[in-house]
Amino acid sequence: MTGRLYGLGVGPGDPELITLKALRILQTAPVIAYPAPDDGDSLVRAIAAAHVPPGRVEIVIRTPMQPGRFPAHDVYDRYAAEIAAHLAAGRDVAVLCEGDPFFYGSFMYLFERLAPRFPTEVVPGVSSLTAGAAAAGLPLASRNGTLIVVPAPLEETVLADRLAAAESAVVIKVGRHLDKVRRVLRRLNREAAAIYVERATMASGRVLPLAGVADGPAPYFSLILVPAEAG
Amino acid sequence: MTGRLYGLGVGPGDPELITLKALRILQTAPVIAYPAPDDGDSLVRAIAAAHVPPGRVEIVIRTPMQPGRFPAHDVYDRYAAEIAAHLAAGRDVAVLCEGDPFFYGSFMYLFERLAPRFPTEVVPGVSSLTAGAAAAGLPLASRNGTLIVVPAPLEETVLADRLAAAESAVVIKVGRHLDKVRRVLRRLNREAAAIYVERATMASGRVLPLAGVADGPAPYFSLILVPAEAG
Repeated sequence: MTGRLYGLGVGPGDPELITLKALRILQTAPVIAYPAPDDGDSLVRAIAAAHVPPGRVEIVIRTPMQPGRFPAHDVYDRYAAEIAAHLAAGRDVAVLCEGDPFFYGSFMYLFERLAPRFPTEVVPGVSSLTAGAAAAGLPLASRNGTLIVVPAPLEETVLADRLAAAESAVVIKVGRHLDKVRRVLRRLNREAAAIYVERATMASGRVLPLAGVADGPAPYFSLILVPAEAG
Repeated sequence: MTGRLYGLGVGPGDPELITLKALRILQTAPVIAYPAPDDGDSLVRAIAAAHVPPGRVEIVIRTPMQPGRFPAHDVYDRYAAEIAAHLAAGRDVAVLCEGDPFFYGSFMYLFERLAPRFPTEVVPGVSSLTAGAAAAGLPLASRNGTLIVVPAPLEETVLADRLAAAESAVVIKVGRHLDKVRRVLRRLNREAAAIYVERATMASGRVLPLAGVADGPAPYFSLILVPAEAG
């Protein structure tokens, strides 16, 4: 019997926003794995900290965070092999994912390598998308409005095209792209209504009108909600 | 002291996909409210059933479900007044919401009426969006891809425009619009890759390729995942 691979959404930051299902698996899986920057603490490990029993095998997936680049495939090949060894030995492995595993998460790189070979279950979590809207008190979308999710690293003209393609928008991965996003929204006449949300549901979280945010880089875990225009 | 209004996301269907926070509030709020069709059982009340202690005051928000129409404003005026009476008397009220309160939820109609007058907190939940992707084993979006959420009731040409505006798409509220959505996706050459998800994470849930779904109306709680084209 091989073990089972779990992609475990642990929610956007507040440890209380984990689901009962993720909690149950977290408390029983003998092996947990989670991403962390090259040198530094893992955010998702911190979110889950209160729920991880002692004595678990822990695999720290060190992924170099280089602005504008994605981790190389060989990094995931290596960690997939390490996880596969546990699964082949019959041990369940829970991969902790910030927010939801399939909403812009790096879990997909492990999923595509391991799901064809081992029983795999993805446990959805509360995403930063809806957590940001809740923190801001701003409905994401309603009725027959469309909603587009746009990563801030996109090139300026693409960003503008995409933002104009739906009634409501959420710009994610704002980080060092804040000034560019603001410029685009201003040109579309939508800066005034936009709300900036930093680290939604975390103790250090902030919500404020985009117009009130200082220029310069923002944290990676920030997003901008662009509500539908009244009318 | 007035009571506190909660918009409580209880997740997409599986009772285990409720968050610890929603569970805590659900178990302590003296009054709960939830939508239900004109004559029939409330889906969200069923999702929360295992977690609702006996002896709660329950407000059933009866909203006429007429295809293609949204409930009239006076319905929400009336229920907002009923909820306001509890809040004014110092009783917390938890409004149960399928999925997430601000992701195409009817909670926004109560929120806009009550949040200006009473302390209000929105507790985000696992949305059908990420639950559907998890059930299908299909990442929603990754890297710098854009993701658009498109309600199926939209007019055919609008639907086609919106679907073409992002790399990945999710069509929600499929219901009686299944044939129209299929026609549009076929024209865009994206039917073959599309995955149909019915009642994600519920015991009665189904996942299958759109091409394998029979013509005719689908349940309201179904969605179609349209992955990014390879390349």
